[in-house]
Amino acid sequence: MRIALAQLNYVIGDFDSNVSKIIESIAKSREMGADLAVFAELSLCGYPPRDFLEFDDFILRCEQAVEKIAAQCNGIAAIIGAPARNPDLKGKNLFNAAWLLADGQVLGTANKTLLPNYDIFDEYRYFEPNRQFNVLEFKGVRIALTICEDIWNIGPDPLYVATPMDELIKQHPDLIVNIAASPFNYDQEKERGEVLRTNARHYGLPLVYVNHEGAQTELLFDGLSRVLNAEGNAVVKLQPFEEDIQCVDFEVNSGKLVPYGKGAEGLTDNSKIALIHDALVMGISDYFRKMGFKKAILGLSGGIDSAVTLVLAARALGSENVLAVLLPSEFSSQHSVDDAQQLAENLGVKYELIGIKEGYNSILDTLKPQFGDLPFNVTEENIQARVRAVILMALANKFGYILLNTSNKSEAAVGYGTLYGDMCGGISVLGDVYKTQVYELAEYINAVSEVIPLNSIVKPPSAELRPGQKDSDSLPDYAILDQILYEYIEKRIGPSEIIAMGFDEAIVKRVLKMVNTNEWKRHQTPPILRISPKAFGSGRRMPIVGRYLS
Amino acid sequence: MRIALAQLNYVIGDFDSNVSKIIESIAKSREMGADLAVFAELSLCGYPPRDFLEFDDFILRCEQAVEKIAAQCNGIAAIIGAPARNPDLKGKNLFNAAWLLADGQVLGTANKTLLPNYDIFDEYRYFEPNRQFNVLEFKGVRIALTICEDIWNIGPDPLYVATPMDELIKQHPDLIVNIAASPFNYDQEKERGEVLRTNARHYGLPLVYVNHEGAQTELLFDGLSRVLNAEGNAVVKLQPFEEDIQCVDFEVNSGKLVPYGKGAEGLTDNSKIALIHDALVMGISDYFRKMGFKKAILGLSGGIDSAVTLVLAARALGSENVLAVLLPSEFSSQHSVDDAQQLAENLGVKYELIGIKEGYNSILDTLKPQFGDLPFNVTEENIQARVRAVILMALANKFGYILLNTSNKSEAAVGYGTLYGDMCGGISVLGDVYKTQVYELAEYINAVSEVIPLNSIVKPPSAELRPGQKDSDSLPDYAILDQILYEYIEKRIGPSEIIAMGFDEAIVKRVLKMVNTNEWKRHQTPPILRISPKAFGSGRRMPIVGRYLS
Repeated sequence: MRIALAQLNYVIGDFDSNVSKIIESIAKSREMGADLAVFAELSLCGYPPRDFLEFDDFILRCEQAVEKIAAQCNGIAAIIGAPARNPDLKGKNLFNAAWLLADGQVLGTANKTLLPNYDIFDEYRYFEPNRQFNVLEFKGVRIALTICEDIWNIGPDPLYVATPMDELIKQHPDLIVNIAASPFNYDQEKERGEVLRTNARHYGLPLVYVNHEGAQTELLFDGLSRVLNAEGNAVVKLQPFEEDIQCVDFEVNSGKLVPYGKGAEGLTDNSKIALIHDALVMGISDYFRKMGFKKAILGLSGGIDSAVTLVLAARALGSENVLAVLLPSEFSSQHSVDDAQQLAENLGVKYELIGIKEGYNSILDTLKPQFGDLPFNVTEENIQARVRAVILMALANKFGYILLNTSNKSEAAVGYGTLYGDMCGGISVLGDVYKTQVYELAEYINAVSEVIPLNSIVKPPSAELRPGQKDSDSLPDYAILDQILYEYIEKRIGPSEIIAMGFDEAIVKRVLKMVNTNEWKRHQTPPILRISPKAFGSGRRMPIVGRYLS
Repeated sequence: MRIALAQLNYVIGDFDSNVSKIIESIAKSREMGADLAVFAELSLCGYPPRDFLEFDDFILRCEQAVEKIAAQCNGIAAIIGAPARNPDLKGKNLFNAAWLLADGQVLGTANKTLLPNYDIFDEYRYFEPNRQFNVLEFKGVRIALTICEDIWNIGPDPLYVATPMDELIKQHPDLIVNIAASPFNYDQEKERGEVLRTNARHYGLPLVYVNHEGAQTELLFDGLSRVLNAEGNAVVKLQPFEEDIQCVDFEVNSGKLVPYGKGAEGLTDNSKIALIHDALVMGISDYFRKMGFKKAILGLSGGIDSAVTLVLAARALGSENVLAVLLPSEFSSQHSVDDAQQLAENLGVKYELIGIKEGYNSILDTLKPQFGDLPFNVTEENIQARVRAVILMALANKFGYILLNTSNKSEAAVGYGTLYGDMCGGISVLGDVYKTQVYELAEYINAVSEVIPLNSIVKPPSAELRPGQKDSDSLPDYAILDQILYEYIEKRIGPSEIIAMGFDEAIVKRVLKMVNTNEWKRHQTPPILRISPKAFGSGRRMPIVGRYLS
């Protein structure tokens, strides 16, 4: 039996395009001689469909689309993902289902048992967990059909009381098929590889794994679909961050189904920072394409964050589709302007130099009756940042750009940024990248050739909103800050344990307080491309009004 | 047996203040002669604690707090809500538990079985569902101790397969106690009353129900704790939107436990609009108090939305703590300025008149090289709104105000507003109130005396961002628009069904498209005080990048 793995990039709720894409891939798989084409979890509607699932109209369209695709399954079968109605009145009304389609009809379905409901996942919001286990048979091959999380309940402290494969294995399957929606983060592939290997070995079965590819707003799906043999070795592995279709032949050998592929050893084991780079480029590219926009605008300060954002945007959208705007104030240094200009020129990106002095002064003039002789403080710093935002948004509105946000995760964490100012944008490119990682990205980019002016990398970070300002005036050194933030945010480790690691108690308490008192600010920020296991946004849900470590 | 119902307003994560409050209420209940004081669900840490629950440090503090409170339970018992660790390795690590404390120790716990995971609820994100049912006994009374959702699994299409009371009733309890975290919406009390009545009658038992009071950012808890007799009639009902402690005596009569109270008939059955009014006032008041702020600022346009917001803010915070800012542009009409001034004077609220002409012109001047002679369009409208925001935020920053957002739900739904302009604010007061409901609120407010100038109510709504502009140039009449929005948002009804109700097909499609293409805008808005069963915010989760009905 030849099985095609179809790793595709879907648009949520766009049934026309998703159905066409699936039907084309079925045709292509058939041409490749495949008996069965396997697609990802909820491939039909895109993942995550979120509250669209609460609309009966949406479910009806899913059902119609399943029929359309089934009608194309002649001479080839397909496994697709789509919601299914729960016929039982008790429990939620939907299942998250895998559909086996053949000969123009539905041959069988398997519903998802383990519904992830942590981090960015909300599946128990919509779906009833499966409680019935049936191996599906196709062309004599007994398939244990599972959906993503169904095979993740392993390790010493499992999240669920039931393990679906422990039930399915009793029915003597020949093969595990797992259709998934497993988004990228820089630790994910390691864990995912381990989970897939463990399942193949533990149950002694080959495993076909098909994942999504492409970005869905903040979620970045890296694909990396694969087939493992029963020893847990990959016999084929699809490309990361690309659509891809590949076939694997399965033959019965000593009574067992064995996959034969070209192997996965040809793949480069990419470094963490290279993967982050590729993920962010895909994130920008898909956000614009799927929103129906082409052109990005951003404020280019001469600092490292906007520099790296600009490089990523130029790579995602093409240099010709990005406009960099230099917006110096009276506190901006000449070298910042020079560095920004140099970068734009290095990239072949068009730039504009627009001073904010006039706008800034007009706001101060307007407020003179109220402000009187009150001293310059953070208010005036914020005015500068906000006047820049007004200008950038005006250009975006007038000429059809989307504004890219250039804030990094360290700043977002401690609230070091101006709401409605530098925190504006349609999408945040670096909001899940700590400052120290932004430097790593800059070095990774410059390793090929010095695109980013060295000065942007080596100078002390500054918002340049008052004379001689440096980030280090307000914040601990980023090397320390980022470590504390990582323990608190990614690892969910509390203050006493972080202090016990050797960090200064006063700094730890100050940092956690800054994080917790700035939830209100982060609540109003753009979606943030997610590259870590714990990004700000839908995967981290904190009370805004609260008083814990604050 | 005398049971005290303690309906309190907690601060999420503020263990010191929550514990003090609970201990004081235990002492007060003892003084009132109570044998048992009952507190709300997760009263110890506040509700919803969200991802704080993922911190071991947070759980440790909960455990320490339970011990502190138990130590105070002498001569009186207490039922409180707090997370409990799951001793089983399999499954999630926590339960949502009710703790029965007496004689300085933990007498027993009951874990929540049904974990709401819809709308604003995320409980399966944190908690393992209970599978063991034990009636707890205290002073000879057998208590079926349940938590909120545990008694909501009724009706013809129940959300869960199990019904905890069906298990507990087998152990012959004398009394149902339900500790809850049931937020207000204008339909909630009707449904809640029905659920409580149905349970008391169906199981033939008296029912003690204790809910939260107070606002947690967008969630508005109305309290209305009560005791029902086995016939389903309330023998006591606590006040809405207020902290309250009341006692009920239970006596055994013909072998059954019977509650005796003063009855609930004295309560006014408030109208929907009165409840919305009171809920919003509480929402503003608690947001400021719990954030540690006192003073609000808002832009007062002379229109109905900012007028109603100002009245609510003045009632919540005191007239002396609110600053109204009139920010006329060249397109503002004189009557708008007059109406705004009149309102501020009626309320005794301080106001400032700050023209935006200088700021607006300076931005246009700055952009002259880019804009050239391009015609005036939405860009220039947005600049006006954003310059206003810069001025309001500058005043807020300089003088320690929080900016109130004045957008209504109709605007938020169709994206009729400027991001980083009039969509700014710390909290949105009317973002869950449709325009037609804003008029109802204005009439409700004016029914006592004409606080809001009649002209603000009767004139056609306009953003006044270009000459002669009216909302009706861009939007269907609010009477139509709001009905379509209600069907789509609150009722999750799709386009064909809405059209079948008699609405114009083109208008329906246009409205739904506007709703769905503006998710990106709503993603960056402030938290919205929730008064409906389906508010924008944490209870409505839609893909930002998607293509469904758009």
